[in-house]
Amino acid sequence: MSDQSDSEKPWSGRFSAPTDAFVERFTASVDFDKRLYAQDIKGSIAHARMLTEVGILDSDACEKIINGLQMIQSEIEGGRFVWSVALEDVHMNIERALVERIGDTGKMLHTARSRNDQVATDIRIFLRDQIDTILGGLTGLMLVLVDLAEREAATVMPGFTHLQTAQPVSFGHHMLAWFEMLARDRDRLRDCRKRVNVLPLGAGALAGTTFPIDREISAKLLGFEHVAENSLDAVSDRDFAIEFSACASILMMHFSRMAEELVLWNSQPFSFVELSDAFCTGSSMMPQKKNPDVPELVRGKSGRIVGHLMGLITLMKSQPLAYNKDNQEDKEPLFDTVDTLIDCIKAFADLVPSLGINAENMRAAAERGFATATDLADYLVREGLPFRDAHAVVGAAVGLAVKKNCDLKDISLAELRELHPDVTEQIYEVLDVDNSLNARNHIGGTAPAQVLAACRRARERLGAGA
Amino acid sequence: MSDQSDSEKPWSGRFSAPTDAFVERFTASVDFDKRLYAQDIKGSIAHARMLTEVGILDSDACEKIINGLQMIQSEIEGGRFVWSVALEDVHMNIERALVERIGDTGKMLHTARSRNDQVATDIRIFLRDQIDTILGGLTGLMLVLVDLAEREAATVMPGFTHLQTAQPVSFGHHMLAWFEMLARDRDRLRDCRKRVNVLPLGAGALAGTTFPIDREISAKLLGFEHVAENSLDAVSDRDFAIEFSACASILMMHFSRMAEELVLWNSQPFSFVELSDAFCTGSSMMPQKKNPDVPELVRGKSGRIVGHLMGLITLMKSQPLAYNKDNQEDKEPLFDTVDTLIDCIKAFADLVPSLGINAENMRAAAERGFATATDLADYLVREGLPFRDAHAVVGAAVGLAVKKNCDLKDISLAELRELHPDVTEQIYEVLDVDNSLNARNHIGGTAPAQVLAACRRARERLGAGA
Amino acid sequence: MSDQSDSEKPWSGRFSAPTDAFVERFTASVDFDKRLYAQDIKGSIAHARMLTEVGILDSDACEKIINGLQMIQSEIEGGRFVWSVALEDVHMNIERALVERIGDTGKMLHTARSRNDQVATDIRIFLRDQIDTILGGLTGLMLVLVDLAEREAATVMPGFTHLQTAQPVSFGHHMLAWFEMLARDRDRLRDCRKRVNVLPLGAGALAGTTFPIDREISAKLLGFEHVAENSLDAVSDRDFAIEFSACASILMMHFSRMAEELVLWNSQPFSFVELSDAFCTGSSMMPQKKNPDVPELVRGKSGRIVGHLMGLITLMKSQPLAYNKDNQEDKEPLFDTVDTLIDCIKAFADLVPSLGINAENMRAAAERGFATATDLADYLVREGLPFRDAHAVVGAAVGLAVKKNCDLKDISLAELRELHPDVTEQIYEVLDVDNSLNARNHIGGTAPAQVLAACRRARERLGAGA
Amino acid sequence: MSDQSDSEKPWSGRFSAPTDAFVERFTASVDFDKRLYAQDIKGSIAHARMLTEVGILDSDACEKIINGLQMIQSEIEGGRFVWSVALEDVHMNIERALVERIGDTGKMLHTARSRNDQVATDIRIFLRDQIDTILGGLTGLMLVLVDLAEREAATVMPGFTHLQTAQPVSFGHHMLAWFEMLARDRDRLRDCRKRVNVLPLGAGALAGTTFPIDREISAKLLGFEHVAENSLDAVSDRDFAIEFSACASILMMHFSRMAEELVLWNSQPFSFVELSDAFCTGSSMMPQKKNPDVPELVRGKSGRIVGHLMGLITLMKSQPLAYNKDNQEDKEPLFDTVDTLIDCIKAFADLVPSLGINAENMRAAAERGFATATDLADYLVREGLPFRDAHAVVGAAVGLAVKKNCDLKDISLAELRELHPDVTEQIYEVLDVDNSLNARNHIGGTAPAQVLAACRRARERLGAGA
Repeated sequence: MSDQSDSEKPWSGRFSAPTDAFVERFTASVDFDKRLYAQDIKGSIAHARMLTEVGILDSDACEKIINGLQMIQSEIEGGRFVWSVALEDVHMNIERALVERIGDTGKMLHTARSRNDQVATDIRIFLRDQIDTILGGLTGLMLVLVDLAEREAATVMPGFTHLQTAQPVSFGHHMLAWFEMLARDRDRLRDCRKRVNVLPLGAGALAGTTFPIDREISAKLLGFEHVAENSLDAVSDRDFAIEFSACASILMMHFSRMAEELVLWNSQPFSFVELSDAFCTGSSMMPQKKNPDVPELVRGKSGRIVGHLMGLITLMKSQPLAYNKDNQEDKEPLFDTVDTLIDCIKAFADLVPSLGINAENMRAAAERGFATATDLADYLVREGLPFRDAHAVVGAAVGLAVKKNCDLKDISLAELRELHPDVTEQIYEVLDVDNSLNARNHIGGTAPAQVLAACRRARERLGAGA
Repeated sequence: MSDQSDSEKPWSGRFSAPTDAFVERFTASVDFDKRLYAQDIKGSIAHARMLTEVGILDSDACEKIINGLQMIQSEIEGGRFVWSVALEDVHMNIERALVERIGDTGKMLHTARSRNDQVATDIRIFLRDQIDTILGGLTGLMLVLVDLAEREAATVMPGFTHLQTAQPVSFGHHMLAWFEMLARDRDRLRDCRKRVNVLPLGAGALAGTTFPIDREISAKLLGFEHVAENSLDAVSDRDFAIEFSACASILMMHFSRMAEELVLWNSQPFSFVELSDAFCTGSSMMPQKKNPDVPELVRGKSGRIVGHLMGLITLMKSQPLAYNKDNQEDKEPLFDTVDTLIDCIKAFADLVPSLGINAENMRAAAERGFATATDLADYLVREGLPFRDAHAVVGAAVGLAVKKNCDLKDISLAELRELHPDVTEQIYEVLDVDNSLNARNHIGGTAPAQVLAACRRARERLGAGA
Repeated sequence: MSDQSDSEKPWSGRFSAPTDAFVERFTASVDFDKRLYAQDIKGSIAHARMLTEVGILDSDACEKIINGLQMIQSEIEGGRFVWSVALEDVHMNIERALVERIGDTGKMLHTARSRNDQVATDIRIFLRDQIDTILGGLTGLMLVLVDLAEREAATVMPGFTHLQTAQPVSFGHHMLAWFEMLARDRDRLRDCRKRVNVLPLGAGALAGTTFPIDREISAKLLGFEHVAENSLDAVSDRDFAIEFSACASILMMHFSRMAEELVLWNSQPFSFVELSDAFCTGSSMMPQKKNPDVPELVRGKSGRIVGHLMGLITLMKSQPLAYNKDNQEDKEPLFDTVDTLIDCIKAFADLVPSLGINAENMRAAAERGFATATDLADYLVREGLPFRDAHAVVGAAVGLAVKKNCDLKDISLAELRELHPDVTEQIYEVLDVDNSLNARNHIGGTAPAQVLAACRRARERLGAGA
Repeated sequence: MSDQSDSEKPWSGRFSAPTDAFVERFTASVDFDKRLYAQDIKGSIAHARMLTEVGILDSDACEKIINGLQMIQSEIEGGRFVWSVALEDVHMNIERALVERIGDTGKMLHTARSRNDQVATDIRIFLRDQIDTILGGLTGLMLVLVDLAEREAATVMPGFTHLQTAQPVSFGHHMLAWFEMLARDRDRLRDCRKRVNVLPLGAGALAGTTFPIDREISAKLLGFEHVAENSLDAVSDRDFAIEFSACASILMMHFSRMAEELVLWNSQPFSFVELSDAFCTGSSMMPQKKNPDVPELVRGKSGRIVGHLMGLITLMKSQPLAYNKDNQEDKEPLFDTVDTLIDCIKAFADLVPSLGINAENMRAAAERGFATATDLADYLVREGLPFRDAHAVVGAAVGLAVKKNCDLKDISLAELRELHPDVTEQIYEVLDVDNSLNARNHIGGTAPAQVLAACRRARERLGAGA
């Protein structure tokens, strides 16, 4: 695969023996870091411009370099560029090609920089832009959730704690719980982006450079908000990758929870929702199967992302400053994390609008399992019982219903009065699931009116109007 | 340990069989969550005040409750409170004690809340306050690093990449690299704090409450910046614990790197620094040993914190909403993470000022290993060679020096002119380590003047003047 | 807490400054490693006996040392021993106490050993014995599963893949799936035990000792199967802790799956099983709740154990040989892992026999969801269709049943014959869930006869007869 | 990339809407699982043979199927096979191709099996064979270590604890410490292999099959030692992947430690070893650099493997039985783990024999740092002092030497006698590093004679003679 003889390696001056062929492959990164070609070229163009502005390069050389780099970009994007493993990485492949295309002028480009600050710059440009893509995707998904929440604001389902029927909730309210999870993910990614968008270029190999560079120029050209304050730190820092992976892990953890609920709700015993055929696959053996593959796979992919987080922390643990070769291992997990997030966000954004909502099944389930027992206790409190006593009375009522194998509303007024003398007919209204829902009418509560208000606020937060 | 009969459990109304003794111990959390007693009481007082303001409680009841809770707090802090495992957790222990102290009025306190929103509130108050403590400690440590950096701005040491001598750097510059790592940790913790400081109270068990509560009042009383927007999310969300653990893991990863360097520098082959006796311990077998136990232990403790992060993510993976008992497992890792951070920050803050700096050894090491070879290449560039060619020429010079077993500055001008004809006497200045240091004179570079300027900026960032 | 002045530290000869008070607490391990007192004393007694056998100690000294150590053990177990943080760890606390009890003879005990090999020995004795306890607990739990499997061998439930109804299975068969998971855990722990049960004592600090010790004697006295082959490795190796944690993580992952199923089956929509009251707790707010706390908590505790595994791997990553202080961090996660495993095993072993089995609900669920569609396809294969075509035909039949909102057995013979002409009345037998179950009659299959046979084999594997 | 229309999906009978194009790509696994083609074909051939032996297939059909499969294998290996994403995975691609090649007979192959048991079989065959490859590589590396240990049995280096000079050790002894780590890895992998080599085929989708299969025949044909005992477990179990990843993580942790030592020893301050040029690369900026890239990269790759372990555990956490789509995520981490192990083993096996050993530097370092202080204490014990007192005396001597800035052997006999009156001239022999080495002459000790004996035992354990 390599068309370069070893003696041509850009650093071979001091070496007497050639690199072992296996070692060449083992240590090369070009197979994966070529993905950064556009960022690398963008960074090199900005570097050339800065060198020119401060007088290290002349304008002619600068123009030749920029033209050469743009030519190489076209070749790469046209599939005509031949990558060489012997040239180790994307940076050396492009620099060598530049010299081949434009001659000795190309050899000036690496003045006042090192691959250490170059790769850190490339990967930060890449990650910053990918975060923007992810944020866009998240906004789309969140909008889809608000749409569904608004549509199903008054749809009653059983809310669960401990996967036991707890209290009736609005299905729309549940969708907004998902929205809130993602809203935090969005905030976290935005905070992370601030720390990604800092320019390492100019740090050189580790100590800066003896040339009179102006790093603010490079920063401005490349859209970086800040210049890294310390050269040693700039080339050794991989916090941005870890912080991004942590954000991604929490997001995927959220997706695993949402997926778990979809799988549950889509199961025969629940039958709360139906996934559209487009998001399911069948079985090679069982002809009746329609499997919720998409949420299952998303749930499974949470493992992959958490694994990358763990891998990156392990990678950096105990490394002395400044750059060590270990850091080459930062790219593959980062790329895979970005790709997985983008895919999973799309999967949910496509799937949610096509969800079939079995409102009748949900309501029926909400009416089983004594979901309004708390409403009964609250009623007794309003009748004058201290809450803790009311709780005990209702507990006894539930015990009675379990024994009689009936629902709370099937217990007669007389029986209820034995538990507490002040109970009136009004109690049967309290036990109604719609009334229960409507009664939780405060910010954060599940009353449909609150859900609709929350939807409005959610749209405002997304900057998408009402 | 329990002095409560099982029938007294606050939720036992619906149960026919008593809790198994082992199960009681296995599921109880009071052994560790009693640490939250002050937060629990603070939250309960705010809850009582809010209930009073909206007319659910009358003022007398409110005062009785508050007095009762304050009495209990005194008992706990005086070591006179008897915790009961049968009462499961800190919340029920305190509520039961309240009823015992003030009678039936105490039974009103749990109106319009659940342990689900109560515990989430307690732990957020706790974590918010601990983050403030940690931020204070970090600031102290960062100040100590700036002090040292300023003192040692002109101290030359070999900078390493790949643990190979790379270029001379200022020891103060290296200390500022540590500073930058911690500065990011500080930023991250501040961002995390925003998401911690959100009030779950009012979410009830999962759906809100039928009482006309005003959650903004509670938020204001407890210092929360926002009210959680969704009740289901509010009781099930443990992102704050994970995000904090991720911040802590990155911080501990930084500490592992700093510790690794201290251990290295303190080893006999390096002998760059000497840890003071107070931070070392000896060996039971080897009488000469003075071991850098403190940095080693800090390095080791990075494992513990990463482990907690992984544990918490695993904990939350695939949990359906809303609250599940699994979440009880959030506290111990969080407590241990907080305690470990505080200890490790203190360990470094105490240790750094007492570091003995062996400036002579560092300088001697910087003068070995061809640390100024890049300066030579840069010189040739200024003499007109393209950088890539200059790199090759210097590579050959290093090869010659290796063969002759001498340093670059021991090669004669004649020999150097064979490599490149334009070399002059000036080259020997370029090879001087102090000149090398001073030449990297731009933002982020290692020139002592830059280090001092960076120290000034660092102090400003810490809000601590010049 | 310390009653020892610093000058008394056993290694203080070479030091000029006292240990900082915070450092003393920070680096001390006695608060947790005192748990190893019995192992430490056992190891010391064996060491003294060995020293005597090879002539380094005389018998009188040996007897005095052993008596002294036994006295100390009594004091510890009687709660009369005062632990000192200034003496750092369990080893120094006991050695110092020995010298106080028996005078200068006690100072001879540390001849030919170091704390490095001593602690490695203690912890291996501890872990070996705990593994035996865990194995005993596992066997008990496995037996309970076989009992239940045998009792419910013919109980039909829907088997799920993708949480979709797939094929009818025997509930007993499902219990045996759990059995098989645990059987692998048992095997793994036994394999792990072999690598735990290797003696480090005699490795000294890292290089062995100049005294003419006989390590085989120590090994024999302490029940170790092998002597560690290399002193450097012996003091630095913590593989046993990691391997054990990995075994524990897989076991807890299994428990998380079993717990997940119990929580699901115990939910109102499933209602396959009912947990006994003794394994549930209630809600402080919702009077009707009976939460499956025990399985939830076990599921949550999987996070803790995986966290410890990750922590231990991170701990050891990149440590140069031989012993480093980092390793002190091995104990707390190990202790917590052992305790958690023992508790969780007991929780399941107690809970399983008390499970209420709702056989009717399970059967009803198995009869919904086209669980016998594969049986129909298999039938068509036996009638001569290639499997892939039979699969397609049955897929169409299911599509028809979905459209008609009926079950497969409700489709008329005429309609079925339109799909395939050779269908006969026999098809309705094929669609019967009991017949379906009985038809899977091969090793590993779900036929009740196979389940009973598997139970017999399981008992044999447990060494517990039929 | 797909040339299959959606209606051709093998399970599409029951579906009314086509699979979304994105979903098709998102859920397909063929891009990575096609790597299992040979295992899949091998498994299918065995399945066909078994079906024939029990009379489900006739011999003609069997021969046609086997020929068809072999033809497909040739096409794949010749690069002539067109993989279709629409056909999801390796199994369906091959089955569809079989039907295209041999007609309806091909449709019989899937009788009595499901993709669930098929994929579990494929991956177990794959992993079993890869473990054998890894074991072979490990043996080679271990042999190389024994060779080096034998050659350098008498080479003195300073042994470190806490990275402080502790006692002189033999460099060969250190190599054998590495050997012992790998020996445990070998044992663990062998134990793991037993649990990998169990046949799931015959478990069907989850419950077995209604056909009269004979799984022992399949097991024998495929080289499996056991038949999986339970069908539900057989299709859901991924323990083998996790256990293998745990073994791999420990192995990579060992490699990270070995790599750390190589990087240290190769640094200028240590200069104990020199890596050959073939295992190093240079710097793009610093012409003098020769970086130990290979050990650094291996060290870094430990993160990747630990990450995969974490990912796989997270993947399986809380999954209900039996097969869920999540499990598709098991393959990529497993493949990457296998490839990484094989590469890293080769990297070390190539690198170790080419290590340059700087024996003089090591000896010089061993003679600094009071490495023989323990020998002095041991000497005093033999003169009659209790060890603890001897330790204190030598501690004082070291304190004196530190103050005088000299070595222990530079302290005069008179001065030493002030510390202890019985000291004789013999003490200077005790302080000699070679004598120190030779004195640790017991199993596991560092005496060169012991190292050579350990080498002999090591060769025997490898089954490679002396």
